Amino acid sequence: ELNMNETSAPIKTAKEELADFVEIFPILTNEILKELPGMDMPPQTIAWIEKMINVNVAGGKMNRGLTVLHSLQLLVEGRQLSRSEIFLANVLGWCVEWLQAFFLVADDIMDQSITRRGQPCWYRQQNPISNNGTTIGSIAINDSFILESCIYILIKKYFRNEPYYADILDIFHETSYQTELGQLLDLTTQPNRGDFSLFTLNTYRRIVKYKTAYYSFYLPVALAMLMAGINSTPAFSTAKDILLPMGEFFQVQDDFLDCYGSPAVIGKIGRDIEENKCSWMICQAILNGTPEQINLLKKHYGLDNPSDVELVKKIYGEIGLKKIFKDYEDESYAFLTSKIKSVRIMPQEVFIKLLSKIYKRDL
Amino acid sequence: ELNMNETSAPIKTAKEELADFVEIFPILTNEILKELPGMDMPPQTIAWIEKMINVNVAGGKMNRGLTVLHSLQLLVEGRQLSRSEIFLANVLGWCVEWLQAFFLVADDIMDQSITRRGQPCWYRQQNPISNNGTTIGSIAINDSFILESCIYILIKKYFRNEPYYADILDIFHETSYQTELGQLLDLTTQPNRGDFSLFTLNTYRRIVKYKTAYYSFYLPVALAMLMAGINSTPAFSTAKDILLPMGEFFQVQDDFLDCYGSPAVIGKIGRDIEENKCSWMICQAILNGTPEQINLLKKHYGLDNPSDVELVKKIYGEIGLKKIFKDYEDESYAFLTSKIKSVRIMPQEVFIKLLSKIYKRDL
Ligand SMILES: [Mg+2]
Ligand SMILES: [Mg+2]
Ligand SMILES: [Mg+2]
Ligand SMILES: [Mg+2]
Ligand SMILES: [Mg+2]
Ligand SMILES: [Mg+2]
Repeated sequence: ELNMNETSAPIKTAKEELADFVEIFPILTNEILKELPGMDMPPQTIAWIEKMINVNVAGGKMNRGLTVLHSLQLLVEGRQLSRSEIFLANVLGWCVEWLQAFFLVADDIMDQSITRRGQPCWYRQQNPISNNGTTIGSIAINDSFILESCIYILIKKYFRNEPYYADILDIFHETSYQTELGQLLDLTTQPNRGDFSLFTLNTYRRIVKYKTAYYSFYLPVALAMLMAGINSTPAFSTAKDILLPMGEFFQVQDDFLDCYGSPAVIGKIGRDIEENKCSWMICQAILNGTPEQINLLKKHYGLDNPSDVELVKKIYGEIGLKKIFKDYEDESYAFLTSKIKSVRIMPQEVFIKLLSKIYKRDL
Repeated sequence: ELNMNETSAPIKTAKEELADFVEIFPILTNEILKELPGMDMPPQTIAWIEKMINVNVAGGKMNRGLTVLHSLQLLVEGRQLSRSEIFLANVLGWCVEWLQAFFLVADDIMDQSITRRGQPCWYRQQNPISNNGTTIGSIAINDSFILESCIYILIKKYFRNEPYYADILDIFHETSYQTELGQLLDLTTQPNRGDFSLFTLNTYRRIVKYKTAYYSFYLPVALAMLMAGINSTPAFSTAKDILLPMGEFFQVQDDFLDCYGSPAVIGKIGRDIEENKCSWMICQAILNGTPEQINLLKKHYGLDNPSDVELVKKIYGEIGLKKIFKDYEDESYAFLTSKIKSVRIMPQEVFIKLLSKIYKRDL
């Protein structure tokens, strides 16, 4: 006999869920594009925006975006989500992806990055309108603004009549601000090469909490919580309490991969050493290196020169940063597991699911 | 006997109104800054944001900001506004100024401008944290984002419980998007020097409607309308119908002043010719010049070279652009006056007041 209980209907496979998510991207893009002819925008402008959205919003790993639906499914505890709930959760998921695109387009300019997701960064791509081989260049700044505006077009289109409409807007605004503060911290912790006084774990943790953890971990879960009708402040505090440290670990891993990950896997060429970044790697090297090693790092860190970068990596090896990372990974996993086990106010599975995603991330 | 009727209490002078407006700027800035220590932001970061706000938001002419209060006063038709209504209208006025700052900081980078309001553009100012004389540079991109975020912090602080809270957010989002589309049109109408095919009045009008008119003219009045409790769609349409052409004239004037205004008065050095801008001046020159004059313009327009700029200005003089501007000014004034006279749905004075501000603008 088949189990016909609707609430325990077979859960879709990860592959099917991803397919559902990917499927609605062109629908959402079309919502934005279809308004433009009526606004008297010329075809070349519409084509520009279409290309800009496709290049910058699609093609990521979509973990952040998928997290909204995953979290909502676990928050409603066993009840089957309706097709419309799934669609709406995925709309918010895409809004998180659009938010990330907004930040990445600008971040690549500010970091002078070369590639993103295996292709030239948007600002380095050819200007499709120019006839003299110029790149998009600083027009990408305005393009990043447009990507941000798309978020609010989509939210208005699909959520204007929901009682939590203003809550969604508030959380996107707040998360944007937190991310911008993180970027400011990040950008102002770089300028003086050879000065290691700011490369402490304390400074580091503040930067990554703001520039990554809020938008990548807290935001998608908080959006699902709003859709699930949760409005108790303690529930949002609990979520923050777990998701911000989880986001911190995620960024530590990202910094580790910037140095030791394969460009083919991470889709970009690491430049943290060249750019004098306040990375977890340099902070740990300073904490664990000998005075001689630290002096050598001071001489060679933050220079855009292959031989200097190589020397920095050699010292990282001597200090044993791979082992230090492995130990840190184990510790932070244990810390988060224990925190999650004490949660009563909402289903622990929401956090366990996310934890399992990042701790099996491809190294 | 004194007139003690409260509703006809003496209206403040323009100078007093300006003083009221200016007075609340530090209060609003403090609302933003005072949250930062509790967010674990270091003193140098708070100092950065404080300076960034002061340099970029204050010091403009504040016409857009003051328009919210002026419009609200005329919308309530004779009733005296309460101190709290005045304060709230000025908060929204400052939010318009913050929005403008967001756009100007980024616009100056994209246009490679040198000065703004008589001082170096923000991105060209010294980085206060760096010890090696570098400028703020591309960090200004993220600073522009922070300026935008301030808008939503302030609106949330003062309007979260108003029934029109979501309407205010919607209109800021929509206006931002419109302005960004205008910037995109503007930036993609420049690249090919010597190609005059895009420099038509049609193209021009579309650019300025989007990049200037919505945020400078429609937004402040629409905000006042929301505060006044107006929610009829036809009223907002009527306002748009008058305010967008008014904004168009304002930008035509700005383009005229870019060429013929004194830098001391306009606070910047005009660069429209150097930057191959789709300016009203070049559109009119193409429309009114002889084939020989147009050929010369094609050779010399859009070059960052004083002798080329001088030659372009010489041809502008031969074509008589000063007279063409004067005629256009008279015509557009007559057009707007007649449109305003047919308004019944809301007080005509709202529009007359704005009209009188821009048509006596210092040339
Ligand atoms: Mg980067
Ligand atoms: Mg960065
Ligand atoms: Mg990284
Ligand atoms: Mg400009
Ligand atoms: Mg510009
Ligand atoms: Mg101008």
